[in-house]
Amino acid sequence: MTSTLLPFDQAEYDRRLLMTRMAMALAGLDALFVSDPANMQWLTGYDAWTFNHHQGVIILQDADPMWWGRQQDTQAAMHTVWMPEGCVISYESDLVNSMDRHPIEDLARHISGLGVQNLGIEMDSQHFSAKGFSVLLQVLPDVGFADATGMVNLQRAIKSAPEIAFMRNAAAISDKVMDGVIKHADVGMAKNELVALAYRDAIQGIDDARGDYPAIPPMLSSGSNTNASLLTWSDQKLVAGEEMTFSFSGCYRRYHAPLCRTIFLGEVPDEIRRAEAVLIKSLDAGIIAATSGRKVSDVARALAGPLGHGPDRGVGYGGLIGVAYPPSVEDDVISVNADSEAVLEPNMTFHVSPSLNVLGATIKIGQSIRITDDGAAEIFGGLSQLIATK
Amino acid sequence: MTSTLLPFDQAEYDRRLLMTRMAMALAGLDALFVSDPANMQWLTGYDAWTFNHHQGVIILQDADPMWWGRQQDTQAAMHTVWMPEGCVISYESDLVNSMDRHPIEDLARHISGLGVQNLGIEMDSQHFSAKGFSVLLQVLPDVGFADATGMVNLQRAIKSAPEIAFMRNAAAISDKVMDGVIKHADVGMAKNELVALAYRDAIQGIDDARGDYPAIPPMLSSGSNTNASLLTWSDQKLVAGEEMTFSFSGCYRRYHAPLCRTIFLGEVPDEIRRAEAVLIKSLDAGIIAATSGRKVSDVARALAGPLGHGPDRGVGYGGLIGVAYPPSVEDDVISVNADSEAVLEPNMTFHVSPSLNVLGATIKIGQSIRITDDGAAEIFGGLSQLIATK
Repeated sequence: MTSTLLPFDQAEYDRRLLMTRMAMALAGLDALFVSDPANMQWLTGYDAWTFNHHQGVIILQDADPMWWGRQQDTQAAMHTVWMPEGCVISYESDLVNSMDRHPIEDLARHISGLGVQNLGIEMDSQHFSAKGFSVLLQVLPDVGFADATGMVNLQRAIKSAPEIAFMRNAAAISDKVMDGVIKHADVGMAKNELVALAYRDAIQGIDDARGDYPAIPPMLSSGSNTNASLLTWSDQKLVAGEEMTFSFSGCYRRYHAPLCRTIFLGEVPDEIRRAEAVLIKSLDAGIIAATSGRKVSDVARALAGPLGHGPDRGVGYGGLIGVAYPPSVEDDVISVNADSEAVLEPNMTFHVSPSLNVLGATIKIGQSIRITDDGAAEIFGGLSQLIATK
Repeated sequence: MTSTLLPFDQAEYDRRLLMTRMAMALAGLDALFVSDPANMQWLTGYDAWTFNHHQGVIILQDADPMWWGRQQDTQAAMHTVWMPEGCVISYESDLVNSMDRHPIEDLARHISGLGVQNLGIEMDSQHFSAKGFSVLLQVLPDVGFADATGMVNLQRAIKSAPEIAFMRNAAAISDKVMDGVIKHADVGMAKNELVALAYRDAIQGIDDARGDYPAIPPMLSSGSNTNASLLTWSDQKLVAGEEMTFSFSGCYRRYHAPLCRTIFLGEVPDEIRRAEAVLIKSLDAGIIAATSGRKVSDVARALAGPLGHGPDRGVGYGGLIGVAYPPSVEDDVISVNADSEAVLEPNMTFHVSPSLNVLGATIKIGQSIRITDDGAAEIFGGLSQLIATK
């Protein structure tokens, strides 16, 4: 069918499929069942909010990918994937709630019909359940199974030129949203009022780049709550002299570029100013260390240096970014940690985010970056303020 | 600690725990590992965007629930759960990306230390992976495992009075958002512009009821895309004389009340008017059939009657609603299907949503309802228009 909604041309999908098949061959797999929705989208274009149900894409060495999911979601598949109609296969919707049958039995029948010997499964993905695996083991006793968690995610690490263009759009949306938050934040305003404007700006997007739903909602913590960075928001009113952390990602056609700033209403205490200088130093050091050929751990150590963190803070400096669906905006397949042996390559894209505890709160900055051919990483987006004050 | 952020009083949490423990006892379980974030929130108050990582709550018969998750998420737990600090246990964050260790090994150590004999696991939940289960089996060869998918979800089916009050707030937000969409929709407007305003209204909320992030984003399909109901939106411009379906849920402190309408810009064709009358008849019939003591299948059949659907449309009329996290707003544990034997009880809450294909498109209405003590279901919210035209 070749959907008119496809974000990329066929050459881009062919390249992705080739890379994935090479990784499969190296792992001795003749088939791969991809259930991570970001991986599904990257390989086939599939984009619909159906990932609360058993679904996936079957990748073989010598045939087009096959989309598999609920019968009632096949229309969404036909509207969004590049493969011909015969590659969209489905199970009856009444299997979803069946007490005595399971959707994965239907998948197993297809796998069996394809004569698969060694099947890779994303076993540690949110989108392949323990129950699903036990059904596969039971129905397909003669098939070999291998854990292929992260296999496709790793292929996605290095972005193509059109992907980078999409991420620049996402970064421009992130900048617009952050600008708006800094502009609109005011003493006495309820947090949800501020987040409401952030959502509006994010979905409106910029110029010809419409906003898509981000893989994570805005995080807006303040005061002593800033050490619990994954709280979203409340109707609490903004207070003068209290730091707040706003963490967010613009999204353009499923591509993300997260951004994080600490914002102050009123006079900034000297301790915070000093901490700001340290965070700027940390981010600068991280960006300089983020050069092609070096290890991800070098970036983590460079970020950690100025922060004076001990070994207990060797993790949590960020991760790979790109295509994402809720609930993860960063891809754990390569995290910016002090023990990561992954080697940086041009056009890998990361979110890096150092933080510091000061005056009983946590202040944090986060920036999305791209590894270049040579030298320091490129910063996505144009926001210069590291800690915004007003 | 008893968090100040808790939405309900301790008696409500005690009641929930009691019900869950009774269900566990009936199933012969001395422990239950709850990983569905909606179940975690319902039992403990826990509410943070951390469900992309291995986490859960351990429920025992004779001790407070224990929150278990990443070390860096313990602050979010301390801010939101009702249990004392000693009930928040964690694994080191560097386990997340470890090549040779797995977070579930840490969970297994705790389970082992508790002397658990029979452990229930939500095996078909998105939030317990196949890999996690294989680790448990390996590390705990002497523990019996049982699939407890849906066990807590079923306890959540009947809402308490304070929960119903929260759902009324969510419904009021849904109404506000739908009113805004009907008001702002205009020929030539890009879909994402309309969705941007919907998000703003949803997060602003109403009066003293702040909006929370909904478990599903708005779905805005139009024309021939309306048969693919789980597409979100694009930057396509709204066209005169084309139907569009807007599906959404307001959210108040994690409680939802979904709403769906078909909207026309311009003159409505007679065929659509006739279809509208059929949908109204269907919804009315469903609401009258939704009385305490009857089966869910009766509601599905009542909805189906006026639609003239054959047996192939015995599913997909809606599901249980209440607490929800992405990606599911309806709970599959009881779906409004023609083969559901579940019996309706007062204060169960559902989203019911009949649809009809007409003129190459799908028109749809959806309403959230509450089963009453006696007679027809109560409709949440006050929107009277079934198909909005402008």
